[in-house]
Amino acid sequence: MRKLPFPIIIFAALSLIASACASSDSQSNLGSEADQIALERSLSEADVAAALKTYTPSGVIDEYLMFSSGGHGGQVFVIGIPSMRMLKSIAVFTPEPWQGWGYGDQHHEELFAAGAVGDEVLTWGDTHHPALSETGGDYDGQYLFINDKANARVATIDLRDFETKQILKNPLSVNDHGGTFVTPDTEWVIEGGQYASPLAWDYAPIDDYSSEYRGMITFWKFDRSIGRIDPEASFGMELPPYWQDVCDSGKAVSKGWIFCNSFNVEMATGLDPDDPDNTEYFESGVSAGENDYLHIIDLDAAVAVAASGQTVQVNGFPLITMDTAIANQLLYFTPEPKSPHGVDIAPGGDYIVVSGKLDPHVTVYSFEKIQQAITKGGFEIDRYGIPLLDFDDVVEAQVEVGLGPLHTQFDDQGYAYTSLFLDSDVARWSLGPPYRQDGWKLEGTVDIHYNVGHLVTAEGDTVSPDGKYLVSLNKWSLDRFFHPGPLYPQNFQLVDISEPGPNMQLLYDMPIANGEPHYAQIIKADKLDPWTVYPEVGWDPGSMTVKPDAPQIGTEGVSRDGDKVTIDMTLMRSHFTPERVTVKQGDHVTWNLTNVETSEDATHGFAIPGYNINLSLEPGETATIEFEAKHDGVFTYYCTEFCSALHLEMAGYFLVEPN
Amino acid sequence: MRKLPFPIIIFAALSLIASACASSDSQSNLGSEADQIALERSLSEADVAAALKTYTPSGVIDEYLMFSSGGHGGQVFVIGIPSMRMLKSIAVFTPEPWQGWGYGDQHHEELFAAGAVGDEVLTWGDTHHPALSETGGDYDGQYLFINDKANARVATIDLRDFETKQILKNPLSVNDHGGTFVTPDTEWVIEGGQYASPLAWDYAPIDDYSSEYRGMITFWKFDRSIGRIDPEASFGMELPPYWQDVCDSGKAVSKGWIFCNSFNVEMATGLDPDDPDNTEYFESGVSAGENDYLHIIDLDAAVAVAASGQTVQVNGFPLITMDTAIANQLLYFTPEPKSPHGVDIAPGGDYIVVSGKLDPHVTVYSFEKIQQAITKGGFEIDRYGIPLLDFDDVVEAQVEVGLGPLHTQFDDQGYAYTSLFLDSDVARWSLGPPYRQDGWKLEGTVDIHYNVGHLVTAEGDTVSPDGKYLVSLNKWSLDRFFHPGPLYPQNFQLVDISEPGPNMQLLYDMPIANGEPHYAQIIKADKLDPWTVYPEVGWDPGSMTVKPDAPQIGTEGVSRDGDKVTIDMTLMRSHFTPERVTVKQGDHVTWNLTNVETSEDATHGFAIPGYNINLSLEPGETATIEFEAKHDGVFTYYCTEFCSALHLEMAGYFLVEPN
Repeated sequence: MRKLPFPIIIFAALSLIASACASSDSQSNLGSEADQIALERSLSEADVAAALKTYTPSGVIDEYLMFSSGGHGGQVFVIGIPSMRMLKSIAVFTPEPWQGWGYGDQHHEELFAAGAVGDEVLTWGDTHHPALSETGGDYDGQYLFINDKANARVATIDLRDFETKQILKNPLSVNDHGGTFVTPDTEWVIEGGQYASPLAWDYAPIDDYSSEYRGMITFWKFDRSIGRIDPEASFGMELPPYWQDVCDSGKAVSKGWIFCNSFNVEMATGLDPDDPDNTEYFESGVSAGENDYLHIIDLDAAVAVAASGQTVQVNGFPLITMDTAIANQLLYFTPEPKSPHGVDIAPGGDYIVVSGKLDPHVTVYSFEKIQQAITKGGFEIDRYGIPLLDFDDVVEAQVEVGLGPLHTQFDDQGYAYTSLFLDSDVARWSLGPPYRQDGWKLEGTVDIHYNVGHLVTAEGDTVSPDGKYLVSLNKWSLDRFFHPGPLYPQNFQLVDISEPGPNMQLLYDMPIANGEPHYAQIIKADKLDPWTVYPEVGWDPGSMTVKPDAPQIGTEGVSRDGDKVTIDMTLMRSHFTPERVTVKQGDHVTWNLTNVETSEDATHGFAIPGYNINLSLEPGETATIEFEAKHDGVFTYYCTEFCSALHLEMAGYFLVEPN
Repeated sequence: MRKLPFPIIIFAALSLIASACASSDSQSNLGSEADQIALERSLSEADVAAALKTYTPSGVIDEYLMFSSGGHGGQVFVIGIPSMRMLKSIAVFTPEPWQGWGYGDQHHEELFAAGAVGDEVLTWGDTHHPALSETGGDYDGQYLFINDKANARVATIDLRDFETKQILKNPLSVNDHGGTFVTPDTEWVIEGGQYASPLAWDYAPIDDYSSEYRGMITFWKFDRSIGRIDPEASFGMELPPYWQDVCDSGKAVSKGWIFCNSFNVEMATGLDPDDPDNTEYFESGVSAGENDYLHIIDLDAAVAVAASGQTVQVNGFPLITMDTAIANQLLYFTPEPKSPHGVDIAPGGDYIVVSGKLDPHVTVYSFEKIQQAITKGGFEIDRYGIPLLDFDDVVEAQVEVGLGPLHTQFDDQGYAYTSLFLDSDVARWSLGPPYRQDGWKLEGTVDIHYNVGHLVTAEGDTVSPDGKYLVSLNKWSLDRFFHPGPLYPQNFQLVDISEPGPNMQLLYDMPIANGEPHYAQIIKADKLDPWTVYPEVGWDPGSMTVKPDAPQIGTEGVSRDGDKVTIDMTLMRSHFTPERVTVKQGDHVTWNLTNVETSEDATHGFAIPGYNINLSLEPGETATIEFEAKHDGVFTYYCTEFCSALHLEMAGYFLVEPN
């Protein structure tokens, strides 16, 4: 890379600078202070350009927001683009005390209980694929969905207050992967499975794999009027035990159809030293065959079948069996390159791009050809009777992009971008007509550092991608950062994709310090309109309404009914009312709190030492905690947010008299 | 602020640039591509300079590391400077599943159990003051300590692997604040209290406040040979119930002495509608008097007193009573401006700077004068008999800096920097001799955004500060960022303090997305030498040694002894050995795992759905989980880190046969 001095590039637009410089006294003053700083820091010309493209001055708002899964951190990250600054880690499946998430708030306890597996309340998840709500195939900035791969759960986040409102346990499977993805108007939230197990993860010997183990896909009905998924209107579909992987929803011309990968059509069940039939680790066993199957699902027809009651109940949840799916022509397969990870629908809904990690090509299917093949009929069938569309009938193109292709997104110039895990590259390739007349060819690559999993472009999986920025979600960072012990951060790399042709510019490395993101979406920031404070004092974020009996100024107090004590408390800078609460050991305590502030950023916390209780009460918010006063003694509650110059004085005494 | 074009500034060193430009064809090409980008983005000259000073190109390592508390997030953040990128959120008091912290690992369960309050195992903390270990008053990069204000706990972090090794519950108090701070050779880790309560937080009516409620300070003995605090060699000191606040250790000339603030010498006990003596909220009650007391403790003498057995046992822990402290001349008070928050020792140990939040001055005490006053004797005493040094005898200077002064750090030019919460400024002021001959005056201020709590300069609380960078830890961010709902991020602002005189340049805003930091330290990155992988395969991070019976390649297997099942498993790209494990419901399972990788960044995760188990196994690491197989069914364990192109294939079946 060339170092400074810069090559002198002619820009027509430079007349402003030129005229200013011309007024200077000295012809030799060709550098600015900025040049000098760059020189001292040994910044290359590309570094300087990257610095200026990503730098966001104090108080300037980022143009885009990226919503990224946190992987097995269990959260969702909100990151500004181009500054690559994390603005919030939204607490979802993992308790997070700064947000007061899961530390005593009754509403949170109800959410976590709803996400229990059997009677096991879980305190983490493996978030994989965030899905912004859409209207007409474009992000609308209202809601966000995210799955938990580890335990097959789905959460709903409201983007008015950036808080999780719902956690649902999938009744069919104990793990998932192909979620969440939404249909173009967010009627349905899709959750596909991953590792096959008996339905409802009941016990069955693994020797009965082909007969007892199953895959699944679940269609969760989203009710926008209440901002929640309605489990009562949702249903699943039984699939063969082929380890379904990523899914995507059709859009535009393919609206109403769903596409999923699979990667164990071989039905390998793992190395078993005692079993001569199973001498291969999964890593080779699941790739032993020539190809896997792209799953093609007619969702509109499936909805009608489910509505007509042609379902069975599994774990209390309606399921369309494979036989019903076959009989009603809901499900088709077609071969796909083996061990695929991406299935990505082009902006017009016309092409379905699949990346087989062990094939250097991306494979592009035509939705039109798929429909023609279905109409034509005369299918072969797989071992479970699912119709198989002939590969040659439905494929549109294959483009050689490099080693380890994994995931594809799109831009506004007719390009597609595919991550190459093994090459540690991002490939830009062109779509064919109607996107580009000279398409279906590799345009160029950009080095990334290192081992890119998914990637994301600005609104790159919608019907109208923005282009401009791409973020490469790299799994290894190696030499990129100071390494804080043996656990290295991930590396998000921002790439400028605005210039057409072979060149893309790497702009920035962002370490991820608290999770292992898998997938992300980037939305124009001005599509969101979050609240600065809650609409009214006494607002319950659980119900998203004012709570009529929330404590207000003047209604504070402590009351007792037998061994039940109720505390009504308000919080404002810089005191609690009341400042003393006395109970008896063994009392059942219901503590209602309202932050009566109406100024933005005037958050108060509320902690009780020794009781594992911490709330974060945003302006206007009310919350309730309930607990047994089992520890006697003197406990000093206090505001955990540095809310004012006198914040240390915002404290009180919780006195628990011994029995 | 002027926008581009830049003013033309003459630099002698610019000849290189000038000569290159002179070779250009056109005299009008006075701008570079970088100028054009800046113009298009409307960056001011200061913006461009800031961008170039903070931008860290891909693969370039930051010069400094900042260790910041995460506040009631309960973690410690590691942030690179000048890039202001978070490199790791070190899990401490709060479970964190990405790091596998507290999700089944036996070692972590032992740590959390050791930090329990009574029988209540806590899953969060309010981290306030990180303290890097020191040698000769300078950071040595070996260990980090951090307190939990909410529950009065202290943790030890090993900077070889950036993992928490120890959590200790303070036996004297249920909350703390004045910790952690270390003595110049890390012999002692200091934990001061905050809200007074009966010792060991036993119950006593608040009407008995003056006789039964007490403050405390604890001196934890650090044993560097084992990298742990030794509770058996530690002790505490009883203090009046004056709500002790921040502490700091003397250094250089004041080595062996400890200084703490207090802010409720008034002994206010909170508003009580039923009590005519308590009609004021704490926020006014604790500031009703004219001043509070700076606590001055002779630690060397206290150590000798404790070693001689002149202690009482409280909750099984040795305590020097106030009477003993008075009798042995261990403790002195002197008046300080009311409601102070900072007590900060100048690099030479000669001055003690106190900021009273309600006084626009910083007050500077002379250690030499304190010693002279002590020698002189003839003290007044406070209500508990503690000797009171006369303010005029010990004060060196008072400097008016602005409204709401809070915390002070130092640089290498003889300047001190004080955060001004109410002014939302950072003030630079000069120390007097021997630092600057023209000292004790305000030099300049820089606007911050907004409400700065603590601040930190590079190595700014050591005997040899570096200057160069200052970070303002702002509590409110308001309009600085896209606001992700009503809970706003904090704002860390990086300031260039290298230029002497009145000017300081604001460089960068960093939102904090997952905590509410209180205090930070900045260390030169090259002082640390963390491991890239664990030293040997089978390394136990708990004991920091190789575990002799850790699973290794070839020793894997499943064995049974009655209802006790032991699994020995290895992990490598991209399989578990074994890939199938079958147990019976109700079995007690001991699962030993070793990541046998030796390549850096080759971390594997291990999750069991439905069992709330997730590990992060760094290269070489071994761990053990123990649980009862209480849920029957089929559970698919898998690697939660995207470790290779075939990471999805790194899975196995955990089959729990029903009873």
